[in-house]
Amino acid sequence: MLDEELLVRTLSNHEIELFREEYFNLHPYDRAKFYLRLTPELRERIYECLSPEEMADVFENLDADDEDYEPILAEMNSQYAADMLGKMYTDDAVDVLNELNKDQMASYLTIMDDESAKGIKDLLHYEEYTAGSIMTTEFVSIPEHSTVRSAMAILRNKAPNAETIYYTFVINDEKKLVGVVSLRDLITSSDDTLIQEIMSDRVVSVSVGDDQENVARTMKDYDFLALPVLDFQGHLLGIITVDDIIDVLDEEASDDYSKLAGIYDIDSKDRTSFRAAKKRLPWLIALLFLGMLTANLLGRFEATLEELATLAVFIPLIAGMAGNAGTQALAVVIRSIATGDIREESTWKLIAREAGTGLITGTTSGILVIGIVYLSFDGSIYFGLLVGVSILASLIVATLAGSLVPLIMHKFNIDPAVASGPFITTINDLISILIYFGIATAFMSYLV
Amino acid sequence: MLDEELLVRTLSNHEIELFREEYFNLHPYDRAKFYLRLTPELRERIYECLSPEEMADVFENLDADDEDYEPILAEMNSQYAADMLGKMYTDDAVDVLNELNKDQMASYLTIMDDESAKGIKDLLHYEEYTAGSIMTTEFVSIPEHSTVRSAMAILRNKAPNAETIYYTFVINDEKKLVGVVSLRDLITSSDDTLIQEIMSDRVVSVSVGDDQENVARTMKDYDFLALPVLDFQGHLLGIITVDDIIDVLDEEASDDYSKLAGIYDIDSKDRTSFRAAKKRLPWLIALLFLGMLTANLLGRFEATLEELATLAVFIPLIAGMAGNAGTQALAVVIRSIATGDIREESTWKLIAREAGTGLITGTTSGILVIGIVYLSFDGSIYFGLLVGVSILASLIVATLAGSLVPLIMHKFNIDPAVASGPFITTINDLISILIYFGIATAFMSYLV
Repeated sequence: MLDEELLVRTLSNHEIELFREEYFNLHPYDRAKFYLRLTPELRERIYECLSPEEMADVFENLDADDEDYEPILAEMNSQYAADMLGKMYTDDAVDVLNELNKDQMASYLTIMDDESAKGIKDLLHYEEYTAGSIMTTEFVSIPEHSTVRSAMAILRNKAPNAETIYYTFVINDEKKLVGVVSLRDLITSSDDTLIQEIMSDRVVSVSVGDDQENVARTMKDYDFLALPVLDFQGHLLGIITVDDIIDVLDEEASDDYSKLAGIYDIDSKDRTSFRAAKKRLPWLIALLFLGMLTANLLGRFEATLEELATLAVFIPLIAGMAGNAGTQALAVVIRSIATGDIREESTWKLIAREAGTGLITGTTSGILVIGIVYLSFDGSIYFGLLVGVSILASLIVATLAGSLVPLIMHKFNIDPAVASGPFITTINDLISILIYFGIATAFMSYLV
Repeated sequence: MLDEELLVRTLSNHEIELFREEYFNLHPYDRAKFYLRLTPELRERIYECLSPEEMADVFENLDADDEDYEPILAEMNSQYAADMLGKMYTDDAVDVLNELNKDQMASYLTIMDDESAKGIKDLLHYEEYTAGSIMTTEFVSIPEHSTVRSAMAILRNKAPNAETIYYTFVINDEKKLVGVVSLRDLITSSDDTLIQEIMSDRVVSVSVGDDQENVARTMKDYDFLALPVLDFQGHLLGIITVDDIIDVLDEEASDDYSKLAGIYDIDSKDRTSFRAAKKRLPWLIALLFLGMLTANLLGRFEATLEELATLAVFIPLIAGMAGNAGTQALAVVIRSIATGDIREESTWKLIAREAGTGLITGTTSGILVIGIVYLSFDGSIYFGLLVGVSILASLIVATLAGSLVPLIMHKFNIDPAVASGPFITTINDLISILIYFGIATAFMSYLV
């Protein structure tokens, strides 16, 4: 779809007109992709070809790593960069500015035109991950006593700058939100119809301090294209559009995923081993120390081990099963928390369900193991019983641990590394080995 | 937001008018949520209160489990159910029908009105997970020689039935897609403007056989609200709207997640232990047999174990580290495949990066372990060296295994259970123990 060669050639040869013609044939997303792949030298050429406003379009579609914004902006003349930021949709400009340090941010805001700077400053003070931080103030609102004709006139006027014109929000004299009307309703109504007749007055809205994940879930459930954001008195502050919500849902899924795998901020775009290792090593080192605990614990059973070395043979099996049962429970609970299902289901019910699940999976696996060990390892039936019962007990405890740890963290409003896949696995390794060697030591006389 | 009590009371008392008034005050999603929570008896009352068309609205917003559709439809009179399915957006009706068995599907299609049945049959033959299977045929298209005036007339006429009217697709006499025009452009242009002047003729489209995940990525990257679906000759067959894409992205993220945790089709809504256990047990049992392999392997080193029981102490540490390094690599590769980044990055580069990552994490962890074991387990330096070198080798192999297995599966276009978290972990348990005991057996003379 991209004729990169032609674009690069025209750019290198300073054929501004030819370049612009070809470049504007591209969709904004493709423009951004092309831009991002250029060398800094060629990117500087682009700034000569495009106005700050045209560049703003590219930046809104830029899918760059957070830490890349600073060097890219530094390539531009400061006034050009500030003008560009001013021309971007406010929410996107805020996203970019949040990646800079305070001084740089202040300096761009100072040389930006006053109106844009004000809009950006209004959004900058909302906390990250709240509705306020992802909303845009470029929406269309109309007074409640308008007619369809006057509403359409306002819409046509605002269309070039508004992020969406498909929903129009109706406000009263106090700027409080009283209704919403879709463009679909507007164009199918006659010009003299009063807005109040066709608007919906049961508007689903979110509060400016709401968590962005809740906003995303609401949008997904109701199939909205835009949601209004209100302050605590019901004043309309901004809107959140569906494209931003898709990004939030993606981010959220990726967070849960990273947590399960034990990687800090998974990113398939990490190109170097060093960068990839940097995100994985902290977890591996933490596990190393936890694993040392397990080794220490096992060391205390050295007498038991020396008496019956065969015991060691089943360590990986028991620890592995417990680790996995815990991860399964953890994954379900993390998902329940993310989708908000946890609120509908009482916590105690969930714990009871997980305990029951552990009992079912533990009993089934335990019975299977007793059979297999008895048949294939030609040990005594007691050895099979030892391994089977250890698996039953481990699976129950592991399933409970996998669900309780994230629940407790959630209860105390912390979203910590502890509720992650590798930690749960390692803790369950430890518990299951304690169970296995505890039983083995107690009933040693039956085993040897 | 829901006054459930009032709704239930009016429904129980057969106060149809009162119920309808209150019910239609709700957003369709809330109507669906309320409906789903009712007992079958009360649901049967609802069918007396709502027309099939009104019920269709509820069903389009129903977030029920796949297996729940059949019993719910069975509650309805067949003709009522068929009429309702006929009134739904075709893509949603197809989703519901696909959950039924062939006979039931055929019987509903037979008693449905011919036009709706034809629309549904046209979509039913597209393979699951393709663009064709999620597209809708209720879109708006206009001939290329229209004016804005005639386009708006067509739009107003189609608005009540079309799934979106915010994009209008422009087709030529052969029904081939030649452009797209947004409602935003239409309402800001004068009535006599020719569509060809304002339409965009570089339309991003997808092919009917495209994988739904690719469609979702395209929509997400380009921030579209709807994408046209073409057959291989460029004829416009249907459109895919953003709300369906959000569901696809969610489903996809959930699939990757389930795979990492080793649960068949994770569902936080499973209310009973039995249902939860049913989805987890197959994995646990498979792991049990794999774990038996590991036990068998360890059994072969029994002589080594009897000679030096302390070796067993570090089994969980080494296996755990290898298991986790493998899961990390697996998670990154699965994500790269899902986001399509794998196509941009060559496979060999990715493998080289993972090998490098394994080397870095392995060396760091290995050196740490040598120190810790030497200091805290007051063994000889040789014991520390054994554990450290085993961890170095295991981490390299595990990282490679975690990335190679899913890559090979992807290469052969299979998306199997083998590339899942627990399998990779268990295989890496096995490999790491082989490495550890292999080295220990070879250098036993230095250790005792």
